[in-house]
Amino acid sequence: MKHTNTYSLQCPIPKSDYEHVLLAHGGGGKLTQDLIDRMFVPLLGNEILDQGHDGALLPPMKETLAMTTDSFVVDPIFFPGGDIGDLAVNGTVNDLLCCGAEPLYISLAFILEEGFLLEDLWKIVQSVAHSAKTAGVKIVTGDTKVVERGKGDKIYINTTGVGRVLDGMDISPKRCKPGDVVIINGSLGDHGIAILTTRQGLELESQVKSDTAALSEMMLDVFSHVPEIHVLRDPTRGGVASALNEIAKSSGTGIKLEENLLPVSGSVRGACELMGLDPLYIANEGKILLIVAPEHAENTLSVMKKYPSGMDSRIIGEVSDEHPGILHLETSIGTSRIVDMISGEQLPRIC
Amino acid sequence: MKHTNTYSLQCPIPKSDYEHVLLAHGGGGKLTQDLIDRMFVPLLGNEILDQGHDGALLPPMKETLAMTTDSFVVDPIFFPGGDIGDLAVNGTVNDLLCCGAEPLYISLAFILEEGFLLEDLWKIVQSVAHSAKTAGVKIVTGDTKVVERGKGDKIYINTTGVGRVLDGMDISPKRCKPGDVVIINGSLGDHGIAILTTRQGLELESQVKSDTAALSEMMLDVFSHVPEIHVLRDPTRGGVASALNEIAKSSGTGIKLEENLLPVSGSVRGACELMGLDPLYIANEGKILLIVAPEHAENTLSVMKKYPSGMDSRIIGEVSDEHPGILHLETSIGTSRIVDMISGEQLPRIC
Repeated sequence: MKHTNTYSLQCPIPKSDYEHVLLAHGGGGKLTQDLIDRMFVPLLGNEILDQGHDGALLPPMKETLAMTTDSFVVDPIFFPGGDIGDLAVNGTVNDLLCCGAEPLYISLAFILEEGFLLEDLWKIVQSVAHSAKTAGVKIVTGDTKVVERGKGDKIYINTTGVGRVLDGMDISPKRCKPGDVVIINGSLGDHGIAILTTRQGLELESQVKSDTAALSEMMLDVFSHVPEIHVLRDPTRGGVASALNEIAKSSGTGIKLEENLLPVSGSVRGACELMGLDPLYIANEGKILLIVAPEHAENTLSVMKKYPSGMDSRIIGEVSDEHPGILHLETSIGTSRIVDMISGEQLPRIC
Repeated sequence: MKHTNTYSLQCPIPKSDYEHVLLAHGGGGKLTQDLIDRMFVPLLGNEILDQGHDGALLPPMKETLAMTTDSFVVDPIFFPGGDIGDLAVNGTVNDLLCCGAEPLYISLAFILEEGFLLEDLWKIVQSVAHSAKTAGVKIVTGDTKVVERGKGDKIYINTTGVGRVLDGMDISPKRCKPGDVVIINGSLGDHGIAILTTRQGLELESQVKSDTAALSEMMLDVFSHVPEIHVLRDPTRGGVASALNEIAKSSGTGIKLEENLLPVSGSVRGACELMGLDPLYIANEGKILLIVAPEHAENTLSVMKKYPSGMDSRIIGEVSDEHPGILHLETSIGTSRIVDMISGEQLPRIC
């Protein structure tokens, strides 16, 4: 699995120096510099980060740029299949892909809680480095702040990404057309259920792993082979239901899902039944929704299925001119129901 | 003063709806959308933010780009002269200017603590809108997360900025040359002392106000009139001493300050004496250090003095070939001492 060896390097700051994050690590002085020099630069360094400016200088880009930001406050910070570090990189990478962009540069800002274990920070830095490399992005600038004990929770991370929109890409909910098909690259709810079962100490027959993954390689291949993609969206917080609701609302078209076609693993289904949750609303962190004209569906699926993150890609629904602005689910017993946007907070701090 | 009327608008979410931030405001569902629709879009909206994507699409830029990130965790969030909102915008704007760039786009990510007053959030959004307008930057994308009570402290903000580096700008500590002069645009330590006295409830004869300000207008004018600037740095965390130490170290030149020339207000000097602090180490949030060849000093100062943020601009020291890598202070009584980088945490959560 992807996490073998991710945490294999020995912490470069020995416990005899510091075991925990101190307020002074965020003070902008010697200890901040020590963190940067011993922990961040060796693993994250590249020709841009190494400029050592307050800001990074990036080469000119003649294409339209995409820019996106996300803060990650997931609890717990380590979970089956990943941690807050790769989540922070992958989340922003996937948001850039959803703009039709090639992800290029990422900024990395830590808010650390005083007393946080430096060994855990080191694990997370390794994970950030590993996932940035996998996704083909460079960490170009960063920031570290420390707050007092009880004013944070171990570590929060903000990543902001910049990418270049590929020629000819024009991704927008407004491009949804009746007849378009809705594609997803695999099963629903793995990330949310991995977090929730870990948090609650719930033992399932088989452990659910987060699907956290950067989809760059697969999606860049799709971009180069599929001439026209109408909409892209990663169904994170609020899950597939919220993402498709937003698209239906802003496009003014209806979207119809078929329950029979929704890929949900047995473990996720079981956990959802146990906890009274609906997999359609559970967060995913390595999934993407594509809306394309029906004539491009087969081609799209054949490209996606070449990749580990896309092996289980499939059509799960279609855009229609009935019920504009509304998401419908055709159930397995032949009835139809409206799937509304999530109203409360099903799963706080899921990402 | 600049804050008159900043908070004048009535909160668009009445207390009868919600008085406090709920976990669900960060859930990515209806309540998140409600915050965006009622609080953020009306004040921060522009043609890019209004695209309503997960990410923002920005026009191509043929120049080198600058990118910088900072999280703001200042405590208290409201202080004389400003609040965490304008601090977050101004800090990132000034970092872009220090790259020799015109600040253009800013991302805005909130980590809110459950129970935070929506009225206070609204004040901060007004302040963000006001300072972005003053600085000439657009908020182009954002994110809102909510953590449980006791896992944050009211509000933390990350801003990440993108700008275009102006033609001919080549800012780098390595360009320091012996004989270059060090210029600052005004008095030292106002921000740090404003925070510290507010936090400790210290009553001074005259209240010290934070100097938080975006320096765009003044610096863009300097850029267009001064053919060659060697180094720019904003002396925030760790103050002037830390900023110049970093420059001395990475340039391998010596820097000599003259104590007689350092502008420190009577109130800041008094507060520092009372608390045993050195104004050279206190954070500033509306100051910039410029290192230029001596023949450009007069021209630089005359441009800077045209602006409110630069009226008190002056030369405070020079670069020398003695003591490479070290910052010296010539004291008012004629002695000389080394000014080292700050080692501990003088003022946690100052920005």
